[in-house]
Amino acid sequence: MVDFEIPKSHPRYMSLIMREKLVEGFRKGIVVPQGLIAHGRGEAFDYILGEKSHTFALRAEEAVAAYLLASKHPVISVNGNYAALAAEEIRELQRVSGAIVEVNIFYRTEERVRKIYEHLLDHGVERVLPPDCDKVRVPGLESPRGIVCKDGIARADFVLLAIEDGDRTEALAGWGKRVAAIDLNPFSRTAQKAHITVVDEAVRATVNISKFVEELRGASIERLRSIISSYDNQRILKDAFRTMLENLSRASNQGIL
Amino acid sequence: MVDFEIPKSHPRYMSLIMREKLVEGFRKGIVVPQGLIAHGRGEAFDYILGEKSHTFALRAEEAVAAYLLASKHPVISVNGNYAALAAEEIRELQRVSGAIVEVNIFYRTEERVRKIYEHLLDHGVERVLPPDCDKVRVPGLESPRGIVCKDGIARADFVLLAIEDGDRTEALAGWGKRVAAIDLNPFSRTAQKAHITVVDEAVRATVNISKFVEELRGASIERLRSIISSYDNQRILKDAFRTMLENLSRASNQGIL
Repeated sequence: MVDFEIPKSHPRYMSLIMREKLVEGFRKGIVVPQGLIAHGRGEAFDYILGEKSHTFALRAEEAVAAYLLASKHPVISVNGNYAALAAEEIRELQRVSGAIVEVNIFYRTEERVRKIYEHLLDHGVERVLPPDCDKVRVPGLESPRGIVCKDGIARADFVLLAIEDGDRTEALAGWGKRVAAIDLNPFSRTAQKAHITVVDEAVRATVNISKFVEELRGASIERLRSIISSYDNQRILKDAFRTMLENLSRASNQGIL
Repeated sequence: MVDFEIPKSHPRYMSLIMREKLVEGFRKGIVVPQGLIAHGRGEAFDYILGEKSHTFALRAEEAVAAYLLASKHPVISVNGNYAALAAEEIRELQRVSGAIVEVNIFYRTEERVRKIYEHLLDHGVERVLPPDCDKVRVPGLESPRGIVCKDGIARADFVLLAIEDGDRTEALAGWGKRVAAIDLNPFSRTAQKAHITVVDEAVRATVNISKFVEELRGASIERLRSIISSYDNQRILKDAFRTMLENLSRASNQGIL
């Protein structure tokens, strides 16, 4: 339900559509007000980055695809913002990767977990763990933000997160999981604590990861391991920093971004 | 009413608390969804700036204080976000400066004006113009975002704005007012159109302006005029750009902001 028609010619069309999707998610009780704020923050970084998937993002997305294919028990962790923005793209990523999907949220209420779960099912997402899954706690995370499913994140060797809190990202990495995080802010604790940092907008990132999964589907395990072992997250982050600096530097000279 | 306790150990505790204040304002009908997203964008710039009041902000805040003391009819314009974040700090600034406070909002409904007005009164803010003030229109601004009080902004020689829209800032400046704007994004149209751009977080800015007002309270009009005439907003904006670039550059080298 879009409040008003946004002309496709608008230079920030996609950004405005994303905003409308998020507000719709908010009205449905999937997104919390804090999620709207977090989105605005992401918008600022995406704006500085020129609202496109740079090479540093594509390299990270390729590595995520390799992990999804090479891992024994990969899990896509979905929170309110990610579900509201990218339910269809998550369906596609789940379909091509076969990964388990777990609803996992910072501002946790059982009602919101159920609403996000139903939103994902309504969009045809498969292998979503049900809200009444057996629960365990992430070591070091106070309740209720440390609750995860026993057959999902708890058992995962690889977890893909999007728009996630730094504490939670760090706790999962500390629990021995390989962690990839989609986060537009390359300086965030989430970006720093993840093993793979995808500095890209969540929808674009998810589409790109699915494409890489399809490309790599027939690849040997050696090929996947080679992509994983040659991936250097520090270099990826440095490239993201440099691109932001270049864009801001050009903007300072012109006085506008 | 905070939904759940944010642990004080969280590294971004203050930022999360501000977020909670805004969300509370949203639940009370003071803040609109667009205000939540706008706050997120501001957060991103504050984050890049290191979440502190830099020298370029302090110089602008000192100039605002000088204007508040030297002007015949200074007005503090308060919108939903500013009221939700800084009602107590606005009370203090009004008290030390004696300025008139006017509720003035972009997404205007009379109900929301009334709610913000009552929120300010609940926090002890004095000299707030009532919602039923005599109204006039800002030349060049379409209704309803061009409505102002006859005895407030319409008559003001100096207006302090916070987290304001670029069109409205420009229209006030075009109407012959001296305009100061608190805006964390030095690239925004508001930042570009204001005579004094305070690139600082709204609560910190308001506290600092109050301190400068107290410092300058006994100053001669010559002293105040000297501060005003020596203030150079283009230099302030350049300093803000440079600081953002330096922070990002240092952050890039260290890998964290």
